[in-house]
Amino acid sequence: MNRIAVIIVAGGSGSRMGAEVPKQFLVLDGLPILMHTIRRFAETLADARTIVVLPAAHIGYWRNLCREYAFTTPHEVCEGGATRFESVRRGLDHAGDAGLVAVHDGVRPLVGREVILRAVRDAQAYGAVIPVVAPVDSLRRIADGGSNIVDRSAFRIVQTPQVFHTEILRKAYRQPFRDSFTDDASVVEADGGRIYLCEGSYMNIKITTPVDIVTAEALLKVR
Amino acid sequence: MNRIAVIIVAGGSGSRMGAEVPKQFLVLDGLPILMHTIRRFAETLADARTIVVLPAAHIGYWRNLCREYAFTTPHEVCEGGATRFESVRRGLDHAGDAGLVAVHDGVRPLVGREVILRAVRDAQAYGAVIPVVAPVDSLRRIADGGSNIVDRSAFRIVQTPQVFHTEILRKAYRQPFRDSFTDDASVVEADGGRIYLCEGSYMNIKITTPVDIVTAEALLKVR
Repeated sequence: MNRIAVIIVAGGSGSRMGAEVPKQFLVLDGLPILMHTIRRFAETLADARTIVVLPAAHIGYWRNLCREYAFTTPHEVCEGGATRFESVRRGLDHAGDAGLVAVHDGVRPLVGREVILRAVRDAQAYGAVIPVVAPVDSLRRIADGGSNIVDRSAFRIVQTPQVFHTEILRKAYRQPFRDSFTDDASVVEADGGRIYLCEGSYMNIKITTPVDIVTAEALLKVR
Repeated sequence: MNRIAVIIVAGGSGSRMGAEVPKQFLVLDGLPILMHTIRRFAETLADARTIVVLPAAHIGYWRNLCREYAFTTPHEVCEGGATRFESVRRGLDHAGDAGLVAVHDGVRPLVGREVILRAVRDAQAYGAVIPVVAPVDSLRRIADGGSNIVDRSAFRIVQTPQVFHTEILRKAYRQPFRDSFTDDASVVEADGGRIYLCEGSYMNIKITTPVDIVTAEALLKVR
């Protein structure tokens, strides 16, 4: 297996949470969310190099948190940019000679071993793989001042880790930024790359709202 | 305010849950899910007439459950059909002279008072209203053997209760069934009706997978 670099993007300011503390630092079952996330990867990919991308203003706070929680899981800290795109680009500069790179949202602390291993395995074969799940609710598209039902069976909800051959992702990130870049797959796709889908998990939630914290606490306890 | 009929559709067989018991009967915080759902509406819309649509094979089981749990919240039971479409159509036959009808998934027991009241209020004004929330994850559309990113800001995730002027919904349900009918809004839309959106809630989850039961237990406790 190729050496793997894991880039964990933790740049959110937490504005949607209504909390003072950015959501990646909120405590879940006694440990800040970002530490759960780092641990999931360390437990699953023992040889990976983990790069945590944080806003410059949060790096000191993070180092204090690591002392406070005696958090010793190995990781490098890298200063992020103004956008997620710029943060991943900077993380890639730290990935060294890893053959594969996995980019993961810092606020998805429940990512399972199976999802990580599946995405990594498929990425070795296909070059660019993202985990997805099927929507369980009806979907509508807003257009022309109204909205219309769409066939939800044709849609997938995208998760992370998104795993790539490092050279594919590096090449894609040499493009100029566009507003349509919402994840790494969209960057690779705009560069002409083809994205392969693998099965994600409904457990692998993104912590975005206060409701998600409660959900995550509960899911963590049953795992 | 017009008299309201609430049609609670509880026709699922539970095949996605991996459970013997259909999911609307699974116990959440000491009470079957469907009883939570019925109670939410009874607490919010005291004068509404509540019609619970159940598969014929489950009606006896439901009556036993009501005895076992001493569940006395008033509701009528109506025998469902082979499809959700047919079940709602039969529920409508029981709605009598109610001016408004709210159709709700039996497996959304966490629906909040605010969402119910907002959908009802807006339906009085606009005739056809559904609660929606914005997707928090990236979305992809599957097409031509691959998939493409779509602009998620143009999409909404659809919830229930979906509330209508009764005559609008009755007229729409006189159409023949189509596979594209995934909710009541899609039926009204196919009949030429216009659908208005109101703000749903991320708490108003649909219990579809075992993960959702854990989530719902946790959310119920914080409410």
